[in-house]
Parts: sequence; C-alpha cells; structure tokens
Amino acid sequence: MSAIVSPADGWKQVERPPSLFRRYQFISYRDTRAFLDRLAELSAETGLYPDLGFGTTYVNVTVHGGAGGLTHTEVDFANRAAGLAQATAAAV
Amino acid sequence: MSAIVSPADGWKQVERPPSLFRRYQFISYRDTRAFLDRLAELSAETGLYPDLGFGTTYVNVTVHGGAGGLTHTEVDFANRAAGLAQATAAAV
Repeated sequence: MSAIVSPADGWKQVERPPSLFRRYQFISYRDTRAFLDRLAELSAETGLYPDLGFGTTYVNVTVHGGAGGLTHTEVDFANRAAGLAQATAAAV
Repeated sequence: MSAIVSPADGWKQVERPPSLFRRYQFISYRDTRAFLDRLAELSAETGLYPDLGFGTTYVNVTVHGGAGGLTHTEVDFANRAAGLAQATAAAV
C-alpha cells in the first residue's frame, strides 16, 4: 500500500515531505465553516487529520503521508474531502 | 484609534503587513476544536476574522490590521482570544 495507483484528482502532490495540497475558495464565511465542519467529521471517521489553514473565504488543506509516504489512505481522504467541498458549494 | 496604546500581551506584532500573531499549542484535538469554536463565536460577535492555521494540537492565529494599521479593535480581539485559549486549556 505504499505506492499511489492513481493520484488524487485536482490535488498538488508535494514530494518533501510527501503530502497532498489543495486550496479551496468559497464565496462566504458560512460555506467555509460548513466545509470545515464536514472535514472535521471526515477526520473523526477516518482518523486522518490534515493541516488546515483558513480565512473567511478559503481553506488550504495539506494531507501528510506517513513514514512510508503517500498511500491509498491519504488519496481516499483527499478525494472524499473534494467531494465535501463540492457538496458545500452546491448547497449555496 | 490608529495608534496602539498597549500591544496585546503575548502576541508577536508583525510590521508588514501590520498584524498580530500567536501560536497556541493544545494537548488534544478536542481542545483545539473547542478553541476554534470559541474563536468562531468571537468572530461572529466582533466581525473580525483572523487567518487561522491548525493541525491536531496547534492553532496559529494571525489578526490583520486594517488599512490604517493595528488599532484597539485588533488588540482587544487578541486579548479576548488569549482569554478563550486559557479557558479552553483550563477546561481540560
């Protein structure tokens, strides 16, 4: 499980340290908070906690790989996070 | 209101751009989330939204000054945020 079969679509793959990065822009603070809340639920479910940076209308997500680098676990998380972002924006 | 009478205690005052910075470390993700929730309430009350960066056990807070630089508004916010961080840690 140490090699990525297919990288997470739309995410920037960083080599050192192995991580996936993506910036999401929202049109309101309310959407930003809604996305952060959904992401927190996903973290609680998966046990994977990304580093997050946010302001009123953006969220920067960095998903760190483990000691062995990026695996399906991180890629799956990134894909699900992307789905949550889409759901948040669609809910406006 | 464009000059700071007394800077926010414990915060690093950054010149360019004018802002206040502070990093808070917590012993658990639960505390981190509790602090973020309290901070969100403070933002809703004051209308001041800092840039936030966080992981499982830390929160980096950057309070930006307005066009005229840092005023009492930002310093008051920083002091109240510090109080919330203290309350969060004390609640463990």
